[in-house]
Amino acid sequence: MPDAAPRRSGRTEQSGTVSVPDEPEAGPPTTARRPTPGDPPRRSALDPAVAARLRRTADGLVAAVVQRHGTGEVLMMAWMDDEALHRTLTTGRATYWSRSRQEYWVKGATSGHHQYVRSVRLDCDGDAVLVTVEQVGAACHTGAGNCFFDELPVTGTITDPQEDR
Amino acid sequence: MPDAAPRRSGRTEQSGTVSVPDEPEAGPPTTARRPTPGDPPRRSALDPAVAARLRRTADGLVAAVVQRHGTGEVLMMAWMDDEALHRTLTTGRATYWSRSRQEYWVKGATSGHHQYVRSVRLDCDGDAVLVTVEQVGAACHTGAGNCFFDELPVTGTITDPQEDR
Repeated sequence: MPDAAPRRSGRTEQSGTVSVPDEPEAGPPTTARRPTPGDPPRRSALDPAVAARLRRTADGLVAAVVQRHGTGEVLMMAWMDDEALHRTLTTGRATYWSRSRQEYWVKGATSGHHQYVRSVRLDCDGDAVLVTVEQVGAACHTGAGNCFFDELPVTGTITDPQEDR
Repeated sequence: MPDAAPRRSGRTEQSGTVSVPDEPEAGPPTTARRPTPGDPPRRSALDPAVAARLRRTADGLVAAVVQRHGTGEVLMMAWMDDEALHRTLTTGRATYWSRSRQEYWVKGATSGHHQYVRSVRLDCDGDAVLVTVEQVGAACHTGAGNCFFDELPVTGTITDPQEDR
């Protein structure tokens, strides 16, 4: 069984955006326990019609794929629970749920590398959203332009197929 | 406690690619039980150096963001466990783990809408891969060109920022 450390410790003292970290992986992991599948979801003001279409992971999250508006560059992937999606839709500022810290974070709040939301699209089976943004500065907390800089070797590459598109 | 229904029922009878479904959401959900965080991971031949960098969901998965090679179009998001990533890297055919069916699926195996892998990049914190592909036909099992056709209303749009890029 998981331990009984306090939950949601990062949620009660937010005022504005400044106190919310935007580089959740840079600090030590939280000691708050992970939610388990039997836990009730965190409360959210998300439109129930949208919430009903989400198909979440065991810990209540959907994948948020973030793409730079106008260029197609995929910048990062982060996680949203219902409330993070609600805040993203209603503030126009990309807001995520940190799995390691168990708290919300607004991209750019501490780094200045803001993400101004242009569009949010849900996928066909409700487990991912595609967020297009105006990205200020580096999208990755490492300082890289995007988070996908670690290329893995594809050893089974197939020669170009005859495509029907 | 979860029930004790058999696991991995879809793994033992693959021969080639034809028997593997590629539209995992079209059928009824499996009755196989979901893995819980205490379960051992499914066995995989994935390079241990890559496996060590993955930061998986509670059910052992990373998000696979799939982008069309050359255009930037984000086609879909699916899930990979270690073995699905291994198969993707070593066969050059995009291979995923179906959460609903609890089995592997090779995109295009039944639909003909193949994904020939051009590159796979891991993100900075190991919880997502970006897969660029040559997509044959429609990427979405609905017949749509991509899965992200359900636009959600962004009510808090901020006017264009002064950008520093």
